[in-house]
Amino acid sequence: MSEHEHGGVPTLPCAPLRVVNLGLRSFADVLREAGTSVVHVDWSPPAGGDTELMELLDRLSAPPDGAAWIDAIERANAEAMERLLAAEPRLVGIAAARDVVPGMSPRTILHAGPPVTWERMCGPMRGAVLGGLIYERLAPSAEEAQRLIAAGSISFSPCHHHQSVGPMAGVVTASMPVWIVEDAATGGRAYCTLNEGLGKVLRYGAYDAEVIRHLDWLRDGLAPLLAAALARHGALDLRSLIAQALEMGDEGHNRNRAGTALFLRVLAPSLVRLDADREQLARVFEFLRDNDHFLLNLTMPAAKCALDAVGHVPGSSLVTAMARNGTEFGIRVAGTGARWFTAPAPQVEGLYLPGFSREDAAPDIGDSAITETAGYGGFAMAAAPAIVQFVGGSPEAALETTRRMRRITLSESRAYRVPALGFCGTPTGIDLLRVVQTGIMPAINTGIAHKEPGIGMVGAGLVTPPFACFAQAARALAESLGVRARGVG
Amino acid sequence: MSEHEHGGVPTLPCAPLRVVNLGLRSFADVLREAGTSVVHVDWSPPAGGDTELMELLDRLSAPPDGAAWIDAIERANAEAMERLLAAEPRLVGIAAARDVVPGMSPRTILHAGPPVTWERMCGPMRGAVLGGLIYERLAPSAEEAQRLIAAGSISFSPCHHHQSVGPMAGVVTASMPVWIVEDAATGGRAYCTLNEGLGKVLRYGAYDAEVIRHLDWLRDGLAPLLAAALARHGALDLRSLIAQALEMGDEGHNRNRAGTALFLRVLAPSLVRLDADREQLARVFEFLRDNDHFLLNLTMPAAKCALDAVGHVPGSSLVTAMARNGTEFGIRVAGTGARWFTAPAPQVEGLYLPGFSREDAAPDIGDSAITETAGYGGFAMAAAPAIVQFVGGSPEAALETTRRMRRITLSESRAYRVPALGFCGTPTGIDLLRVVQTGIMPAINTGIAHKEPGIGMVGAGLVTPPFACFAQAARALAESLGVRARGVG
Repeated sequence: MSEHEHGGVPTLPCAPLRVVNLGLRSFADVLREAGTSVVHVDWSPPAGGDTELMELLDRLSAPPDGAAWIDAIERANAEAMERLLAAEPRLVGIAAARDVVPGMSPRTILHAGPPVTWERMCGPMRGAVLGGLIYERLAPSAEEAQRLIAAGSISFSPCHHHQSVGPMAGVVTASMPVWIVEDAATGGRAYCTLNEGLGKVLRYGAYDAEVIRHLDWLRDGLAPLLAAALARHGALDLRSLIAQALEMGDEGHNRNRAGTALFLRVLAPSLVRLDADREQLARVFEFLRDNDHFLLNLTMPAAKCALDAVGHVPGSSLVTAMARNGTEFGIRVAGTGARWFTAPAPQVEGLYLPGFSREDAAPDIGDSAITETAGYGGFAMAAAPAIVQFVGGSPEAALETTRRMRRITLSESRAYRVPALGFCGTPTGIDLLRVVQTGIMPAINTGIAHKEPGIGMVGAGLVTPPFACFAQAARALAESLGVRARGVG
Repeated sequence: MSEHEHGGVPTLPCAPLRVVNLGLRSFADVLREAGTSVVHVDWSPPAGGDTELMELLDRLSAPPDGAAWIDAIERANAEAMERLLAAEPRLVGIAAARDVVPGMSPRTILHAGPPVTWERMCGPMRGAVLGGLIYERLAPSAEEAQRLIAAGSISFSPCHHHQSVGPMAGVVTASMPVWIVEDAATGGRAYCTLNEGLGKVLRYGAYDAEVIRHLDWLRDGLAPLLAAALARHGALDLRSLIAQALEMGDEGHNRNRAGTALFLRVLAPSLVRLDADREQLARVFEFLRDNDHFLLNLTMPAAKCALDAVGHVPGSSLVTAMARNGTEFGIRVAGTGARWFTAPAPQVEGLYLPGFSREDAAPDIGDSAITETAGYGGFAMAAAPAIVQFVGGSPEAALETTRRMRRITLSESRAYRVPALGFCGTPTGIDLLRVVQTGIMPAINTGIAHKEPGIGMVGAGLVTPPFACFAQAARALAESLGVRARGVG
């Protein structure tokens, strides 16, 4: 024992105070603002400090009575992971949503995240819905569109309930062209609209005439040429494309520059061979040249396809969806199937475009967290150190994020690798129980929408899902296995 | 002091022997083969252990008599570095070599590296020369070509003497199309042929009918379309393109996948707008899709352009060229202008294509080390961890290489940055004196040619320049400053 540890009043060292802060980040922020050097260590008590949940976790992971559920969970997770890792998403075509997306009608509007009513929708989602109705020529103006909605003649449904995913507001309407992505291993399909580019776009809640004109061009100009080129090219292996992009500084969610460039170069010869108007074709090449995010709308359905291949696996603690509607954050788990576990959507920590700040931001929104759920996006940040210019943070933190995510995943990808970490596979397969036990929350890269409808993108950053979703899901999984905390059952 | 440090006979620890080896790598290799765990630390005695050179270095860097040459060297290096860092290489066009490359004649053949006669040329360079004469229709066969050479009717000259650089054998003949790269800061120009792709190609010494047909297509099919597209597009900023590629896992020498994809996407709209045959155009897009090395022939003249902007700066110890002809390795230094300092070309350490081994390899060859001389290639390996799949080594070693190179450079690039190292600029401006003092040799990534003419590429790897080039150059620089080792003068 040193002198300081017993007796006497320990004196503070002469050197400037340096603090290691454990747990609540806000303590560190306060000290840092006061000029103190602080190292912050993320730490949360197991089960978020919820003693009943803690006991439930104890029973799930180390039952005193030799219960069979541990084996059941492990077997179920092995089965679920094998399905996830075996998926081979391929791009096979483009079609109008009404022709391929299950359950679409001319008056159906799909949206991001778990179910939400018009009344509870956030600003950007409302903006995108109004824009969707104008785009479909169901209403000539936002006012008319609102009347239609008030009259109950529009039905809303989550993309996720229709084998689909949508970035940000995630609005899909009947005549929008969608990518058709197919899992070669199972034949399962997933759908996603074509990426609009950045700025004032529908998915961020903008819906003026320019936004609608651009959507018209996506449908009438871009989609037919891409569809024809794709038909000429044949199925395009997205798993291989994403794997290459991760070796080139993408993480497949907020950085898709390499993937977009690779996609262009793969499809270019087939595009050029089309009997198409040169100027129309040149516009397609220009749009892809200028839109570094184009591939996002393919990395998302590739992820959805792989996670839908998992489906309902009783007993499995694998997270199969994380999605946000701007009002609530929701997750789904293999062991509990289609059920959503939701909590209020958090704010995003990030970098803002000039002229905007935190006050302008809508809460976290979009289905794009499906990329993290499948093992890339925020989970592959170590592959994309340059992304910190877009979402904030440091290259070191990007490395550390991927390492940290490995603590809450069941395995590593066999296809997606991080050269900078010795080509290790990206952390894949979020284990609900590890999240709850460690308090380490999935790291999600995302865009930030303006909170008001009609404006658009204001920034990009990182978001931490609410712990409550995972706590609920853990309880439901335990219940599905007939496990109760002793204090309760 | 511990017991082991005084008195008694220290016993060897029970744990397995672990060795730290300093200096000669072969000692470590022997121990490793014997099953001992060895950490090898590269270390060389200052001035390669040459005591006279050591004294010369001492006088250059810390003269006892307060001589003026230290200031002179520092001023000269500051001037030289400013010129190097200020260069803005832009791609401005394509033309036949005879029309733009200074000093070209129909019977001139340019080659890589320092000057070399036909008699002393290595196998792959001979193969490329024979192929060049067949390509120019100066000879119908290799035998006829050899007769022409023996008759003295062909003149050989290094690319570097003609504002040009060439990868591997580096053969440039009169009718070959060359990129025209211009430094926006000085108006200086550099030239380089168009990259042929991998495999059986002229630059690796292959010259059969297929190789010649492909070169014909580069001239008649590819070059006219690229030239027309470029004319429509306008000058293309190579500095910005290379900077982006380094953020996407390229290092600009042996890994150019991202740069090539970015080049394609930048030029694609202009290509598509040409009034060209669809099939011809599609073949251009396919060639660029399938050739990840295409951009190398632009990163090289971009580097040459920047280093030629430095030119002759009396007193400067900045290395302005490293180039190899397969027989000798040569360097040039700003302080001694156009003079070459040469030594026998070393072997490359690397990975071989299936069916080939070290026994098949020609010595190090090509002007491509101009990329390292300008601060990328091997110097930027930390930006390109995936390159180790091509050249061997580990991602950790790639990071370490960039860090080590910073010890022998005068500065860092302002344009080229490494995200994984906190966006630091790439180590730029090799200081001859630091190389000689530390014994740290420039790290060069390179391809490996078969030693016989007519075969082609057999692998890729890393090469260490001969110390003797730098030792000679240091002596010559000292001499140019009137400095002599006291033992001598």
